[in-house]
Amino acid sequence: MKIVIKNGTLLSMDEKRPQIEYNTDILIDKDTIVKIGKEIEITNIDKVIDATGKVVLPGLINTHAHVPMSIFRETIDGLKLQEWLEDKIWPMEAKLVDDDIYYASLLSFIEMIKTGCTTINDMYFMADSIIKARDVAGIRLQTTRTLMSINGREDSLKRLEELKELIKRYDSYEDTLSFNVGIHGLYTSDEKYVKECIKLSKELKLPVHMHFCENTKEVTDIESSYGRKPSQVLLDNFKNVHTILAHSVKLDNDDIEKLKDLDIHVSTCPISNLKLGCGVPKIAKMVESGINVSLGTDGQGSGSNLDMFEVMKFTALLQKGIEEDPTLMTSYDVLKMATINGAKALCMEDKIGSVTEGKKADIIILDVDNILLKPTNDLISEIVYNAKGSNVDTTIVNGKILMEKKELNLNIDEKIRVKKCEEIIQRIKI
Amino acid sequence: MKIVIKNGTLLSMDEKRPQIEYNTDILIDKDTIVKIGKEIEITNIDKVIDATGKVVLPGLINTHAHVPMSIFRETIDGLKLQEWLEDKIWPMEAKLVDDDIYYASLLSFIEMIKTGCTTINDMYFMADSIIKARDVAGIRLQTTRTLMSINGREDSLKRLEELKELIKRYDSYEDTLSFNVGIHGLYTSDEKYVKECIKLSKELKLPVHMHFCENTKEVTDIESSYGRKPSQVLLDNFKNVHTILAHSVKLDNDDIEKLKDLDIHVSTCPISNLKLGCGVPKIAKMVESGINVSLGTDGQGSGSNLDMFEVMKFTALLQKGIEEDPTLMTSYDVLKMATINGAKALCMEDKIGSVTEGKKADIIILDVDNILLKPTNDLISEIVYNAKGSNVDTTIVNGKILMEKKELNLNIDEKIRVKKCEEIIQRIKI
Repeated sequence: MKIVIKNGTLLSMDEKRPQIEYNTDILIDKDTIVKIGKEIEITNIDKVIDATGKVVLPGLINTHAHVPMSIFRETIDGLKLQEWLEDKIWPMEAKLVDDDIYYASLLSFIEMIKTGCTTINDMYFMADSIIKARDVAGIRLQTTRTLMSINGREDSLKRLEELKELIKRYDSYEDTLSFNVGIHGLYTSDEKYVKECIKLSKELKLPVHMHFCENTKEVTDIESSYGRKPSQVLLDNFKNVHTILAHSVKLDNDDIEKLKDLDIHVSTCPISNLKLGCGVPKIAKMVESGINVSLGTDGQGSGSNLDMFEVMKFTALLQKGIEEDPTLMTSYDVLKMATINGAKALCMEDKIGSVTEGKKADIIILDVDNILLKPTNDLISEIVYNAKGSNVDTTIVNGKILMEKKELNLNIDEKIRVKKCEEIIQRIKI
Repeated sequence: MKIVIKNGTLLSMDEKRPQIEYNTDILIDKDTIVKIGKEIEITNIDKVIDATGKVVLPGLINTHAHVPMSIFRETIDGLKLQEWLEDKIWPMEAKLVDDDIYYASLLSFIEMIKTGCTTINDMYFMADSIIKARDVAGIRLQTTRTLMSINGREDSLKRLEELKELIKRYDSYEDTLSFNVGIHGLYTSDEKYVKECIKLSKELKLPVHMHFCENTKEVTDIESSYGRKPSQVLLDNFKNVHTILAHSVKLDNDDIEKLKDLDIHVSTCPISNLKLGCGVPKIAKMVESGINVSLGTDGQGSGSNLDMFEVMKFTALLQKGIEEDPTLMTSYDVLKMATINGAKALCMEDKIGSVTEGKKADIIILDVDNILLKPTNDLISEIVYNAKGSNVDTTIVNGKILMEKKELNLNIDEKIRVKKCEEIIQRIKI
């Protein structure tokens, strides 16, 4: 299928192009962006999307989430983290079956399509059901089988084996599915096991995805079991390992200096970090040190939703406020975090993250003809600070139009999906 | 006109009622809520609003804003506060004429109606034009003429005189308009003048509205001109003066302890405070000390928009995150800040702030039948953390339906309003 997006205002996020290009057309052939230019000829085109007055962007990339956690939205009010996990989430998760994971994942994927996020990096379990939901929704997914060694040697080796089998099972599968080696965290894996996981990531040439320094308790737990600082554990084990580090809230300036030359990619999840009482990471310092920073929502249990526009706004504002410097974090830098930086984190920058000829057609179109966004004094700031998921008009993944004019193109009944998830939560709730 | 809102889920925010009441009707006669109950008889009713599956709330109250600043949205990216003010905002403001203020204010009032905010506390100049726009939009407004003494004695006394005349001019005007004594700040008024302003507030029995301790520079400026801490200046001058203190970012625990017995009402503007690099106020500590805290957006120049749902989310999350305690700030407490606490701050709790028989009919209805808000595990948390201005379906102020099913009932063309504001910013921009 050949699609042309006509006459949009393009924020390509391609550093070789201008930041903003007006009246620009984009030609998509099958899954690929083949041409970007003015007044592209529209003969032999299957579909013309008129983007006049609209803003065209690469699809947003969520680099840390737990896809099936849609069903645990708003279950934490007034609770401490351990109470929430031990008394609510873990007992409920223990009751989940494959079908639950499928329906809960589908809810998250619909949420992504509606809010302009085209790629998600997931860490959970029962990945086959998540992938099954993904196949229906059409989202670009990187997933894993979560690895940890706290349940004994047999369980931890079984997890590694399951991950290997999972990856093998989907070998030569659709291009929109990829995997990483998901280590739950240093505090839930011993060093021997971490080394085994890293070995696997090297064998398979896949990135590692790991929770890291999310809160003070995690840091002290790691220090007590590893006998040294978490940053030192990274230095000792993760050299030349492409690693997506979720959170990294508790890294101080000294840690950042030490770690900056590793191949680490921080996925900051500011909303979840605040809600769980973790704190605010030193993102501006990381950026200054040259560390690649991208954005994540975390699961909806702590992050409330998968709306990447909210994550952009929180990321930008928190750094300015906490560091008491309004010049930090320009809007363009934050938009990069939500797009091309995310692609780099997931080892996908040759495929996605910018609207570039030759890349896959993961594109969103925003309707900014809205009095709430006017007058527009600075388009990029308007998108970072004032646009919402609800301004997304059209979502295209791998050349497929998943939503157009705010209407889902999927052959699914949203109300039935919601009802299914309501039934799940009724069944499993504590 | 008699209106009945049928069968909604009511969050009345009235402490004498349950937090959530299902299948509840509300009868409005002219401007007043006359009855709340189950299955109210609907004979002789002019208008029935079916709220089945929807959530009914008191209209949200914004206790600190600068209404005409809609036109300055997103003009600050990458700038320091003083650069922004001195090189951009002040030169642009100097060019504003009455008509500009009218059109810019109308834009803000439309924004309020669309995002469920029914009352706003404004501090700016050319109040007649703001009031003229308010008369068209139907919003409940508290306003002032900003008082300061930095331009010499003649100017400062003229400002006081203009405020008195303004209030007199609208004596016995509509009930939806009220005034306060707007002192710009201690750093822009000397102590003698502050005392004169307070004297006027006592004579007129009106609250004072003042910027206070927004950032570090303001604190040091006050210390150098008053020779003592800002909190001490308050203690010395503001006893028994009902005072709305905008921001209060730089109050420490000691200040809060000292000030808690004054009649102060803090209006926290978290989004603006972050964007301007001011920091995060100790809101949880203020609440614990019994200080009434309500919510504000500040002007759109620093706050981006007037969406009170965003302000609720930021307020709740920042305190949990900064204090590293997720049990702080329950959702219900935050919803109180956006409603009844705001009414208390503006000396209006006998009129608005809750859905209560005898109070004025300022009511909003939220459409929560949206996959992005599902499944709903905790309705109040869902509203605070996940609902958006765009979920507002109906907005009623003083018994008048200003928006129904997301359609404005005003006889104005939004596109023309936007164009007017775009012309203004083109004309005045630096």
